[in-house]
Amino acid sequence: MTDVLALTDSLVVGVDFGTLSGRAVVVRVRDGAELGSAVFEYPHAVVEETLPSTGRTLPPDWALQVPSDYVDVLRHAVPNALKAANAKPEDVIGIGTDFTACTMIPVTADGTPLCELDEFRAEPHAYVKLWKHHSAQGQADRITDLARNRGEKWLPRYGGLISSEWEFAKGLQILEEAPAVYAAMWRFVEAADWIVWQLTGNYVRNACTAGYKGIHQDGAYPSPDYLRELNPAFESFVVDKLAHPLGQLGDAAGTLSAQAAEWTGLPQGIAVAVGNVDAHVTAPAAQAVEPGQMVAIMGTSTCHVMNGAELREVPGMCGVVEGGIVPGLWGYEAGQSGVGDIFGWFTHHGVPPEYHETARERGISVHELLTELAARQRVGEHGLLALDWHSGNRSVLVDHELSGLIVGQTLATRAEDTYRALLEATAFGTRMIIDTFIDAGVPVTEFVVAGGLIRNPLLMQIYADVLDMPLSVIGSANGPALGSAIHAAVAAGAYPDIRAAAAAMGSVERDVYLPIPTNVSGYEELFTDYLTLHDHFGRGANEVMRRLKRRRRKAKEQQ
Amino acid sequence: MTDVLALTDSLVVGVDFGTLSGRAVVVRVRDGAELGSAVFEYPHAVVEETLPSTGRTLPPDWALQVPSDYVDVLRHAVPNALKAANAKPEDVIGIGTDFTACTMIPVTADGTPLCELDEFRAEPHAYVKLWKHHSAQGQADRITDLARNRGEKWLPRYGGLISSEWEFAKGLQILEEAPAVYAAMWRFVEAADWIVWQLTGNYVRNACTAGYKGIHQDGAYPSPDYLRELNPAFESFVVDKLAHPLGQLGDAAGTLSAQAAEWTGLPQGIAVAVGNVDAHVTAPAAQAVEPGQMVAIMGTSTCHVMNGAELREVPGMCGVVEGGIVPGLWGYEAGQSGVGDIFGWFTHHGVPPEYHETARERGISVHELLTELAARQRVGEHGLLALDWHSGNRSVLVDHELSGLIVGQTLATRAEDTYRALLEATAFGTRMIIDTFIDAGVPVTEFVVAGGLIRNPLLMQIYADVLDMPLSVIGSANGPALGSAIHAAVAAGAYPDIRAAAAAMGSVERDVYLPIPTNVSGYEELFTDYLTLHDHFGRGANEVMRRLKRRRRKAKEQQ
Repeated sequence: MTDVLALTDSLVVGVDFGTLSGRAVVVRVRDGAELGSAVFEYPHAVVEETLPSTGRTLPPDWALQVPSDYVDVLRHAVPNALKAANAKPEDVIGIGTDFTACTMIPVTADGTPLCELDEFRAEPHAYVKLWKHHSAQGQADRITDLARNRGEKWLPRYGGLISSEWEFAKGLQILEEAPAVYAAMWRFVEAADWIVWQLTGNYVRNACTAGYKGIHQDGAYPSPDYLRELNPAFESFVVDKLAHPLGQLGDAAGTLSAQAAEWTGLPQGIAVAVGNVDAHVTAPAAQAVEPGQMVAIMGTSTCHVMNGAELREVPGMCGVVEGGIVPGLWGYEAGQSGVGDIFGWFTHHGVPPEYHETARERGISVHELLTELAARQRVGEHGLLALDWHSGNRSVLVDHELSGLIVGQTLATRAEDTYRALLEATAFGTRMIIDTFIDAGVPVTEFVVAGGLIRNPLLMQIYADVLDMPLSVIGSANGPALGSAIHAAVAAGAYPDIRAAAAAMGSVERDVYLPIPTNVSGYEELFTDYLTLHDHFGRGANEVMRRLKRRRRKAKEQQ
Repeated sequence: MTDVLALTDSLVVGVDFGTLSGRAVVVRVRDGAELGSAVFEYPHAVVEETLPSTGRTLPPDWALQVPSDYVDVLRHAVPNALKAANAKPEDVIGIGTDFTACTMIPVTADGTPLCELDEFRAEPHAYVKLWKHHSAQGQADRITDLARNRGEKWLPRYGGLISSEWEFAKGLQILEEAPAVYAAMWRFVEAADWIVWQLTGNYVRNACTAGYKGIHQDGAYPSPDYLRELNPAFESFVVDKLAHPLGQLGDAAGTLSAQAAEWTGLPQGIAVAVGNVDAHVTAPAAQAVEPGQMVAIMGTSTCHVMNGAELREVPGMCGVVEGGIVPGLWGYEAGQSGVGDIFGWFTHHGVPPEYHETARERGISVHELLTELAARQRVGEHGLLALDWHSGNRSVLVDHELSGLIVGQTLATRAEDTYRALLEATAFGTRMIIDTFIDAGVPVTEFVVAGGLIRNPLLMQIYADVLDMPLSVIGSANGPALGSAIHAAVAAGAYPDIRAAAAAMGSVERDVYLPIPTNVSGYEELFTDYLTLHDHFGRGANEVMRRLKRRRRKAKEQQ
């Protein structure tokens, strides 16, 4: 371990690879001060309509990316962040990265993405499958059903359901829809690890995604026997396409290669941290790495990550992985598939002209105007109750076929009423998750919020009131990138472990929002009604949401 | 009976007193041709906020009117209609009227409204209580509960529920909240009869409102014994305040007085028809007076009227009255409390600016734009299902505490999707009513539509598809006024009865919209889901709507 006092001016770089762009932040090792940052937007963004190479139309629910966009982030955002920080490259002792997940790349043995080979340039399956590529639902259903029927003991570690977003569903889809791509791929690699491979020249599979997305549990993957029953040709998927030595979070995956040093302007040979996931890496950035400290990263969707001292099976969680957030603890993950994007949808598609005009005249956003109007209301005053399933339910029901519902509308209902009901619905969704953890024996003692939605004070107060818990708020606007920088500092040996680095470099304001007792009791009543609707529509008593989606698909197909 | 051939140029005048204005139409007796019309808007419109005389603030759910506004209709709309028709007053042989109901006026023995007396000018209870005055809900609940407990045999004639809009609830409210007004009123009179009183100088109570709104059944009203149990001081309500000789529909209530001749410019001494209700009088205007011919008057709300040959107890109907539409048949009434006003509410409060801009650029209404976009969809394509209870449910649940619901929302939901789902929801509501009639042994063999919403062809087609019945459409844009003119012609002796006059003067286009088989089967599925939601939220399994309204009231009170 390097002497911390000697590190007064040492720096690390954290790079956060998001859905549409990558952000690099230069951070001081001593205290986590963020000295400068830069963003680079992916030139190809998300490929959902047509393949860039051929213009070929993609089927519904596809979402691809182009891997060279990620390298472009290294080439532009990192040097620009150094510039913005006015930093000397020689002061940088390490770099860390985090990525969306599960985002997968089929590659050759030297890490070349298959989509960069001439023979596969026109083949959609050769491209990066972004986390929100949802067309492997059929495969995911079979994966879950078979695991349930066989009583696979890993299934409860994922709340009883394997997502279409994850490695096995995406891999099986390639096998069944593009066998030539499947045959040609040496490994099916998380983008989180592929970018580290580009930085170091080494392929190290990180323990986080291997666990959450790759069904790696207790040192093993799903058995060949199980895989054969899914599809005989899938029997060796783990051995041939997936398995690879794991790296623990906070460890170094290697050192910066000459090539990557040239891209980034950073010194060759500095430490490169093992890859990580954007949500999970935010926990140390918010100083929330002890058991019971739940971090909610609230943006278009919400991801909840929390350490636990013991292994418990929590119904409908996304996953529990040993060392999934920090080594030595069980990392729990849950999520809400729609949060900020529901508010955004409503603001764009459900708010009449007067509000837009008023907001424009006052120089504020429609969100701000609706928030201001909604903030004047007492709990229950709008008379509405909503279910926050516009993008399905990730936890605790784990059902993409669910949809939004609102009840209580009258001719007196106005846009701010609906807006507030939607804010509240997402808070109720979070409470369902927390209650489910507690009921399963995993205590939740603190609630720390990160992500873009921390800017809405009404939303924060509603969460404090609905959860009846004080809300702490991350101190950084670049949570994931700061988290990656913390990992870099640990990988470089500046701190003994993630916990120590988080304490020095992370940033949180404790108890920023406190529950207001009268609101708490009002929401307690409303939550009882939310729970009733939640269970009625979500647990099979009335499967109308499923039927409406099926009819919608059928009607669309007939066009 | 006057010889019809001699009536070649004879005219009648029909006057329709609506919620905000009165409309007079001059009609040719021979063939029902509408020669001219005029509208007069009530100067005081609906008094909901403050009393005009004093500026006193009214409590929530009050809706009053000023009776002199009705006389002003006679003074302006009738002469203007004659002028528009280029008609000679001496050709007019009768006048008929219809009114909103139950709209009630407390009067002295000479018909003077109490609000016109100096001592009561400042007393809200002395004014006209408009049909939509809803603050007697407490009284209505007691009226219904007591009738149920005592097994009053008239209760099933009203679907098991007496509305807060009707005579007994409004009367009991006056007794309990303004005993001086109650004591001073000689009679509590339907506006439908009061206006006839103004025209003739005679008070004749029409059989229609006496039955539907005044609980007059089998020649009797609720017993003194029952009334005493409601409130000892209410024991003689019927005898002292309500009972009066009835007039049958189509009969003459008297002849035009000198005073009324002066107001209207019509000849003194012509026939004045017994008063009537706007919805019920539309049936002859649409040539739908035979058993099984249901007329739906579709506007902000919908009223369904239909004759039946036999008396049946239909759950949740508004009422069944012998001679309630035409003498000699049982007149059935049902209703939907929100229809066009739900579409209007959504258009005003749920549609984003682009739609308003596009509609403006194209010179069409937002309704028309949404209809055009929604018309492109297949059944089920929007993935939504709504309950049409934004103003509560009048039939078949008879529950004002219910509210709107929409399920199936996703981030892809657009305004036209919601709009179409709301149109469909009201069609499902109509189907519930028709199915309930049929199940109760009252056949519905034809569906005839009148009212402002006949202008929306998509809505009409959806109704044809949901009901799986051809839709016939009234031929007149002034259905109620034409119906009143038909009554005037019968009262004047130009036709032997309403049926004969309707055949000659009424107007309908048969089978304008035919069910489209693929839509019918699609809606059959959706209706099954509507029914499930309807029963779940409407019949007590989940009383969340009731709780949301209660909390809303409580929160509003705390302000």
